Amino acid sequence: MTVESVVIDMARAAKAAAREIARCPTPRKNAMLLRLADLIRENAIVIKQENARDVVDAQKSGLSAAMIDRLTITDSTIQSMMNGLREVAALEDPVGASIRSYRRPNGLEVSRVRIPLGVIGIIYESRPNVTIDAAALCLKSGNAVILRGGSEAHHSNQVLAALIGRALQEAGLPKESAQVIPVRDRSAVTTLLQQEEWIDLIIPRGGESLIRFVVENSRIPVLKHYKGVCHVYVDNGADLDMAESICFNAKVQRPGVCNAMETLLVHENAAPVFLPQVAEKLFAAGVLIRGCEKTCQILPRAELATEADWPAEYLNLTLAVKVVSGMDEAVAHIAAYGSSHTDAIVTRDYERARRFVREVDSSVVLVNASTRFNDGGQMGLGAEIGISTTKLHAFGPMGLEELTTTKFVVFGDGQIRE
Amino acid sequence: MTVESVVIDMARAAKAAAREIARCPTPRKNAMLLRLADLIRENAIVIKQENARDVVDAQKSGLSAAMIDRLTITDSTIQSMMNGLREVAALEDPVGASIRSYRRPNGLEVSRVRIPLGVIGIIYESRPNVTIDAAALCLKSGNAVILRGGSEAHHSNQVLAALIGRALQEAGLPKESAQVIPVRDRSAVTTLLQQEEWIDLIIPRGGESLIRFVVENSRIPVLKHYKGVCHVYVDNGADLDMAESICFNAKVQRPGVCNAMETLLVHENAAPVFLPQVAEKLFAAGVLIRGCEKTCQILPRAELATEADWPAEYLNLTLAVKVVSGMDEAVAHIAAYGSSHTDAIVTRDYERARRFVREVDSSVVLVNASTRFNDGGQMGLGAEIGISTTKLHAFGPMGLEELTTTKFVVFGDGQIRE
Repeated sequence: MTVESVVIDMARAAKAAAREIARCPTPRKNAMLLRLADLIRENAIVIKQENARDVVDAQKSGLSAAMIDRLTITDSTIQSMMNGLREVAALEDPVGASIRSYRRPNGLEVSRVRIPLGVIGIIYESRPNVTIDAAALCLKSGNAVILRGGSEAHHSNQVLAALIGRALQEAGLPKESAQVIPVRDRSAVTTLLQQEEWIDLIIPRGGESLIRFVVENSRIPVLKHYKGVCHVYVDNGADLDMAESICFNAKVQRPGVCNAMETLLVHENAAPVFLPQVAEKLFAAGVLIRGCEKTCQILPRAELATEADWPAEYLNLTLAVKVVSGMDEAVAHIAAYGSSHTDAIVTRDYERARRFVREVDSSVVLVNASTRFNDGGQMGLGAEIGISTTKLHAFGPMGLEELTTTKFVVFGDGQIRE
Repeated sequence: MTVESVVIDMARAAKAAAREIARCPTPRKNAMLLRLADLIRENAIVIKQENARDVVDAQKSGLSAAMIDRLTITDSTIQSMMNGLREVAALEDPVGASIRSYRRPNGLEVSRVRIPLGVIGIIYESRPNVTIDAAALCLKSGNAVILRGGSEAHHSNQVLAALIGRALQEAGLPKESAQVIPVRDRSAVTTLLQQEEWIDLIIPRGGESLIRFVVENSRIPVLKHYKGVCHVYVDNGADLDMAESICFNAKVQRPGVCNAMETLLVHENAAPVFLPQVAEKLFAAGVLIRGCEKTCQILPRAELATEADWPAEYLNLTLAVKVVSGMDEAVAHIAAYGSSHTDAIVTRDYERARRFVREVDSSVVLVNASTRFNDGGQMGLGAEIGISTTKLHAFGPMGLEELTTTKFVVFGDGQIRE
């Protein structure tokens, strides 16, 4: 068997399994997810043994400490996979819900009913817990799923795949409803991305280079975000203590994630007071500020920013800072350099709050709150399969509903078209 | 200027205009559409003169009578363009509507608000009235649009484009909000399909070969249906008079459109009575039946179908007919040969009606009604930009709402993430 034929067979089998999982009753899907949580608990030792093989290989091949940290399955990772499964089991099943229902003048009763998308391909990097989290969300929403983790997590993903397969089969569902590609070769990914006949959607999770590779090679629609260049704009007259608290949270609480602030925009009237105030806290937390000329005049410790800083997603404790003349410049800066991900304004002004919300074209736009809230759980979606900055189909955090579409169901009494 | 640079400049200008049209208030968009209707009436003579040049060219180059018929702008075409504009002006504006709104435990107020997609590219064939219809729907939903009609309608589309530009400018909107590509060269289409930086969505309208060309060459997401292979399944015990009326309507009322029935499936118990009854009417209307062996035994006038008939979209008065042993075979046949477009069951049985609705994976699934109802107007969407059989973003007829997406708007009081 070639890599190509293995992947094509998996894709075809997934499409067949998709018809079964699509009509599986909710209680059976939930029982399967809870059983999988139990299987993970019962097999924790084996999971950690297999994971240890990956970790040893990773150390031999010189992966960074951060990568190895993300790869390692600890007791707390096991617990969080189990908790995740129980949370997804407890979420409302979107399949079969009617999002709208009405009667036409000719008596036809029309409703738009949620159905699964079909087969979803997930391509991700080192964290093996994504195997469980992503499978749970796809299966709960009635989709079949093909998972392709990083080759460095090969053994971990294989043992998790075997447990998912067992939970599916015990629930009377085809084990092809969730499959992990067993081949390490990267050509498996390129082949997967060509199976538009069998696969309905691709979701890549990882760094920008992985995502660009997927988009460039896929014939299947891709939901993704390349990066999060998130802004906070501190308006003239803003509550500066609130602004400080929001900026500190947005930058420092978890700087390595996509919804962390990368650029701070400050109104020129607020800057002389606000920048020294916020900088004191940021510098104390180890933040490096790269500022425009005006910023550097106010903050001598800041480095002078270059054009490359404005579109940068640092993912670390670096922050770009720009003093702006007002809303027009702030909104234009976000339009020019932002990534349609998450942007916030801190203001006391009603009209400017409304204008920011209307004119900033990002998946989540916030007034007087931290950018860190762009997250499925925080937005009340229950769990998150990813964040989309593509406007088609889903824009922003994606939960179970975003893994479905709707069909029109029409009940008549013999109506024909005149 | 090369063709490439003309198209790229148009795409870039459309993106800039999109920001203007996105925030244009509803009354101003409506006034613009109504003014365009008046401009079309006032310029009817010029429109018909320019159209006559296209028609003469088409006759010289030997286009089919059907193609010339679709190309020709009559007084009734003018009237229908004007009516279309007035109808779109009267439709509710989807932009700014909140589809959901809730308060999180930490006090954040979250709403999901409809916003335009951005820039939409429409690629279509000979009918010049699509220029007006499609522009109206895109503009009303706050999108900029780039239109590329068939080269045979070049002069007609240019004069219509000039009128759209005038209506936009009189309303204080950038004329680049709606542009018609002025180049006849087909390379304009391939260039357009590469502008993923500026264009958010492509909608092709036309035959299967146009659509396949667009899908294969596009780096931008495409909403489309390749074809409509629509089925009616007449169940055991169905009301045969109702079945006859529905089948006749679905096949004969307008056989050249995508929601016309192409294959009739009949339960083997119903076939001996129903097939002669419905065939009498169908034959009288000029329908040619290509049937399975059992069909040919019951209907000696039918021709024997081959494997090629089951996936065929005839778009004429040919009908494939198959006698099936029951629901299992009917549903499996639709899954194997259908196009996820429109399928109907005629039945008196509650459980089988429910099962058909649940298991048939098409954008519109009907019980006891004609397939001809898969249409934006008939489904109550007001007007239709097209029908999608792609499950991502939109599935089924697409109206104004399907030309929008939602963003998350969050109002807080200084909340930060713990």
